[in-house]
Parts: sequence; C-alpha cells; structure tokens
Amino acid sequence: MSRFADTPQPPYYVVTFSSQRTDVDDNYGDMATEMMKLAAQQPGYLGVESARDSEGFGITNSYWADGASIIAWKRVADHLAAQKLGRTKWYERYITRVARVERAYGFEKN
Amino acid sequence: MSRFADTPQPPYYVVTFSSQRTDVDDNYGDMATEMMKLAAQQPGYLGVESARDSEGFGITNSYWADGASIIAWKRVADHLAAQKLGRTKWYERYITRVARVERAYGFEKN
Repeated sequence: MSRFADTPQPPYYVVTFSSQRTDVDDNYGDMATEMMKLAAQQPGYLGVESARDSEGFGITNSYWADGASIIAWKRVADHLAAQKLGRTKWYERYITRVARVERAYGFEKN
Repeated sequence: MSRFADTPQPPYYVVTFSSQRTDVDDNYGDMATEMMKLAAQQPGYLGVESARDSEGFGITNSYWADGASIIAWKRVADHLAAQKLGRTKWYERYITRVARVERAYGFEKN
C-alpha cells in the first residue's frame, strides 16, 4: 500500500500535525488506527500521510477538500475524546497547522 | 534542541515534502544537513521540522514568511544540484506541497 495520499489538483487543505510522543503506550496504536479509519469516513477527506521517527517525533498530514470539513472533523465526538487522551497521555507536545495547498508537484522513479 | 519550529502567528507558508527514500546512502545524510543549513540562511526562512520512519518514509516541513521566499529557495544553485541528486539517487518518490498556513495551535505538557 502506498504511503502517499492520492490528492487532487490544488487547491485543497492540509492539516499538518507535528508531535512528540510521551513514553506512555496505553493503546496509542489502536487509537491512532481507529482515528485514521474514522477520519477516512468524514466528508471532504482526501487522504493521510504519516511518519514517526525512533525518537518519537512525528508529522501526520491529513488532506481535506475545504476548511469546513476540517472544522467538522475536529468536532466529531470520538475524535474530541481522542484529542483529550492525547493531551493527558500520549503527547509531550504538539502543533497543529491548518494550511491551504496552493500548488503541488511530485517525482516517481521509473 | 527542540524538534519543533518556533513559527510566528499565521499567516505564513509551509512546504511539506513527503518522500520515500531508496536504499542508496551515498552521502544522503551529509547533503540533508548541508541543505538544512543553507535553507536557514535564506530570506524568509522560519524553521523546519522533519521525521523519517524505519521504512524510509518521511515528511519534512519547512516554514517560510511568504511565497516569494519559497520560489527563491527552490532556485538556489546548490539546492538545485541537491534536488537533481535526490531524483537520481536518494528518492524513490516524493510529493512537494506548498501551502499557506491560516491558523495554528499547540499543546505542551506542564
């Protein structure tokens, strides 16, 4: 399975979530998987890309058709509960940035 | 040293670079370090955040004051040379997305 999101021609939106994990596991992986599935069911969802390194620092980009979809997803009840657990258990620190993608280009080896 | 970029209040820009590395090393680490240093010297540079996982998939976000700074950085000669080496040696695939950050918020544990 590709690690890259199959995003359309811009404009669209990206939520880029930079985070430092704590040492606490406590179902983090299960919750992350569940939130990925739930996000994919939301209106306006376009895809996700994510990488976390061996020091626990990670960046997750989720892509959305418009700003309204992002606001709606932030307010989904199960997602709100996960966000709260994130702050109490799983994350040392995070920054969420919401940005409008203006252009995109890529490369793929033959 | 913090892994987080100390970005100002939006608006500003993010270049989010998603990439899959090849198995080829060949000075990749040295070049990555050199490009990080060179980027930091460019007008409009605000910071960088980066994570690459054990499967070689990574996301690097660089932050910029405006769109013109991003275009100028893309055209810096040493950076152009590095981009070319990236395509011939280091990357299996990449997507670069240029986006305008509209809002940002964060959390830090006490």
